This record gives sequence, structure tokens and C-alpha cells, in this order.
Amino acid sequence: MSGAGRLIGVGTGPGDPELLTVKAVKAIEAADVIAYFAKRGRGGNGRAIVEHLIGRDAVMLPLYYPVTTEIEKSEAEYRRQITDFYEESAAAVAAHLDAGRAVAVLSEGDPLFYGSYMHLHVRLASRYATEVIPGISAMSGCWSVAGIPIVQGDDVLSVLPGTMAEQELERRLSDTQAAVIMKVGRNLPKIRRALQASGRLAEAVYVERGTMANAAMIKLADRPEGDAPYFSLVLVPGWESNR
Amino acid sequence: MSGAGRLIGVGTGPGDPELLTVKAVKAIEAADVIAYFAKRGRGGNGRAIVEHLIGRDAVMLPLYYPVTTEIEKSEAEYRRQITDFYEESAAAVAAHLDAGRAVAVLSEGDPLFYGSYMHLHVRLASRYATEVIPGISAMSGCWSVAGIPIVQGDDVLSVLPGTMAEQELERRLSDTQAAVIMKVGRNLPKIRRALQASGRLAEAVYVERGTMANAAMIKLADRPEGDAPYFSLVLVPGWESNR
Ligand SMILES: C[S@@+](CC[C@H](N)C(=O)[O-])C[C@H]1O[C@@H](n2cnc3c(N)ncnc32)[C@H](O)[C@@H]1O
Ligand SMILES: C[S@@+](CC[C@H](N)C(=O)[O-])C[C@H]1O[C@@H](n2cnc3c(N)ncnc32)[C@H](O)[C@@H]1O
Repeated sequence: MSGAGRLIGVGTGPGDPELLTVKAVKAIEAADVIAYFAKRGRGGNGRAIVEHLIGRDAVMLPLYYPVTTEIEKSEAEYRRQITDFYEESAAAVAAHLDAGRAVAVLSEGDPLFYGSYMHLHVRLASRYATEVIPGISAMSGCWSVAGIPIVQGDDVLSVLPGTMAEQELERRLSDTQAAVIMKVGRNLPKIRRALQASGRLAEAVYVERGTMANAAMIKLADRPEGDAPYFSLVLVPGWESNR
Repeated sequence: MSGAGRLIGVGTGPGDPELLTVKAVKAIEAADVIAYFAKRGRGGNGRAIVEHLIGRDAVMLPLYYPVTTEIEKSEAEYRRQITDFYEESAAAVAAHLDAGRAVAVLSEGDPLFYGSYMHLHVRLASRYATEVIPGISAMSGCWSVAGIPIVQGDDVLSVLPGTMAEQELERRLSDTQAAVIMKVGRNLPKIRRALQASGRLAEAVYVERGTMANAAMIKLADRPEGDAPYFSLVLVPGWESNR
């Protein structure tokens, strides 16, 4: 351990501020520095969820994603900019850790489940005392508000990023009892086709902004075509006896 | 809605009482009746986690699993006894709901993710006002204490019950970036063979009693043979760049 500081990855849950854990609330209230990822010009969703907990004396450390909208994700230039961004972010957090501060890094949902926090964790956890406080994942929040039992008994659950190739998505949907499709956004038309082709469209439920004030859900088959907002996912329930 | 009561499925998380959500704490404190599943003669783990929150006036409603140790799970007799048990449990809860009471049903981890609460939910949610409060799942608790980033980017996560057939387990482990194997117990030797055969044993991490006071974790390859306790699971991390 090179520093006296403490790194804490804090899961802030899917949106409802009451879905923070007691441990997360205490960690945020006690932190010297509160770091969070955000788009430049925006407050950051992780931050908005916990605004009411942030003490007057806490130092805020926003980590602004680089503006890469003009660049294709597959391009080397995109990867270089993103890697540089995570390196610089880790260095900014490390400076506080070296000064002996407790740094809470806010992470939407659960930090180690498709979360940006992971990029700091792999760069810093071996060098500083580190704790990860789990959060309610978006999928848990969504199947809870929808009241959908997702898996029981011997069911397999497949968590599938909507960014996957259509054929691959279709293949995996055909070979699982239950599925959650994350990262929906403009992948929705493709996701719908894959569900149709795998015979699972009728069971699929679309949830947007699950647990937030403006949450909405609808059977995907009944939802009009078109892109979905960033905070949306699709649930395909398992549990035979329940269908 | 046939009654004025309210059914609340409350996720109590993986073991650490501080991993309850703020919403769960409030629901338990406010409930008229607290129902929980337990083995006869035991206090019930879900209850132990929240003992400190239970008010003096709350009515406790233990739901004792039938003693079925002598019967094979595949037998019709086992299925009949278990179904009867869930029917009777639902009726016991419904009696309180009909009397206008708020009944919190404790559920380890997340209620709708392989939880016993689901058996009450499907029998009662259409008849009574119902709310499900998500909980930190066992897998989130375990990868957080282990500090293991489980999935990133386009990774697929497969959640696999250790009760599955060995060949099927092996096939699925060979065809996923990340995996969580639940329900380990006496399935551990089979799980180890399936991980070995799929070439994933070296990455696998075994976690028992994750987030509880006596939590332990070890690379599965380094763990001696033998059965595992009920509260144990195996993590196979994804995220190529992290391996
Ligand atoms: C980068 S991942 C972060 C996942 C998060 N760490 C978790 O534990 O769920 C972002 C994706 O999560 C999903 N998501 C996050 N919050 C959500 C919400 N409140 N409702 C629906 N989907 C949500 C969307 O699919 C989104 O594309
Ligand atoms: C019937 S399932 C309940 C799952 C729970 N509803 C959840 O959300 O994680 C029980 C299985 O969860 C896992 N489990 C529960 N708590 C655990 C803990 N603290 N540490 C490790 N595994 C745990 C074990 O694999 C066990 O066989």
C-alpha cells in the first residue's frame, strides 16, 4: 500500500435514492472526496442520486468523459482517448489517496457490474486500501418494479449486452431460460428482431428508468418502434411454472 | 384487490446487515407482520440479518419448510409437500393481508432472483397491493468483497445453478465470458470438473458466506476437495483486459 488514503467504490443503485444501502449512505457521508463520472455539462446521474447525502465539506471530483461522439467506438483513436481518460482519472484520484484522504467513487447500480468504477479499481486497488460497496443493479431494480420473478430452481440467467451482434444475441436468447438485455438505446430494433427470431418476443418486458420518478414499463411487443433512452433494459423471465 | 393489506417482498441482502437498503430498513420497521422462511428449529438467516430492526409490536410469522430430507427432490411426493407448503404459507400471509395489515416477507439477497418469496408473490400479487424492494444479491456481495470486476463492455454473464448436469455446466462455461455458479454445496466436485473441462478452473474464485462476519474466499484451484456450505458460490470473471 503506497498511500494512507482509502478508495471506496460505492454502488448508488438504479435511481431511487432509497435504494442505496445503509453502508453506502455512511460511506458517502464520511468521505473526504466524492468522485463521479459525468458527461461534461451534466451533473452526473450517480451524483444526482446521492445529492442529499453530500456534506458541505466534501471535495467534489467530477471525472468528465472525453467528447468522442464523432468517433466510431471501434476506432483506435476512440480507444486511445478513453484509455487516456481512465489513466488521468486514476491519477486524479491517486493524488487525493496519497494525501491520506478517503475517496468515494460513485457508481450507478453495482460498481463491478459493467461500471466505469472498474477502470479505476484495476488501476488503484493493488496500491491503496480499497473497499467495494455493492449496489442494487439496474436489472434487480427493474424486475422488482415490474414484479417479475426472473429465475427460480435450475433456471439459467444470461445477461446480454444489446451491443452484441444480432445473430449472437438470437443464438443466446434461444439457449437460456431467462435473459436480461442491457445497453438497449439505439440497439432496440436489433434486440426486437433477435427476440422475435428466437421466439421470445411475447415474453419480453421493456423497462425504462426503472425505480426513478419517471419509470415506465411495457411489453416489448406493445412498444412502438424507435430508439430507447440510455436508462432502459429488456427482461425475459424464466421460471417455466410462472409463464 | 381483495384486501386492504399490503404485501412487501423485502430483500435483506447477502448477510451484512449494513447492506440492507434504506427502503428495506424503513419497510421492516413499519411492518405489522414480519414473515420469513426458516428450517424448523432454526431462527432463519433472513431474520437474523434484520433482528436489530424488528419492532417490539411486530407479529412474527415464521414459515417452516417441511422436513423432506428423506425424500429425493425429483420425487412426486417431494413436489407435493413443497407445493402444499407454499399454498399454506400464502394462506397464512393472506389472512393478515385480509385483516388490513402490512406484511413484510424477508428474502435473502434479492427477492425475485432464486428466492422463496417468489412462491408467495405469484400466489398473492394479483390479489393484494404488492411492492418488491430489491436486495443486494449474493453474487454482487461476493464479487464486491473479493474485489473482482465481473463484466465490462460486451461481456456476457451466465448465472448457472450448480444443480445442473455436468455436461451442460461444462458446455455453458465454455461459451461465456463471465459466470456465477450458485447453489454450490455438495455440487462442488462436479462444478470443479466442469470448470476444469471447460478450461476455466484457473480463473475461478470460490467465496463462502460473502459479506458475513466469517466470510472466506480462495481460488477454487487451491481449495481442498469436499462439500461447501450452503452459503457459497463460484465466480468466473470476464473482462478480457483484466485477466
Ligand atoms: C454501463 S451499464 C451500468 C450497469 C450498472 N453498473 C448496474 O449495476 O446495473 C448501463 C446500462 O444499465 C442499464 N440501466 C441502468 N440504470 C437503469 C435503470 N434505472 N433502468 C433501466 N436500465 C438501467 C441500461 O441498460 C444501461 O445501458
Ligand atoms: C436460493 S438461492 C438465493 C439467492 C438470493 N435470493 C440472491 O439474491 O442471491 C441460495 C444460493 O445463494 C448463494 N448465496 C446466498 N448468500 C450467499 C453468501 N452470503 N455467500 C455466498 N453465496 C451465497 C448460494 O449459492 C446459495 O446456494
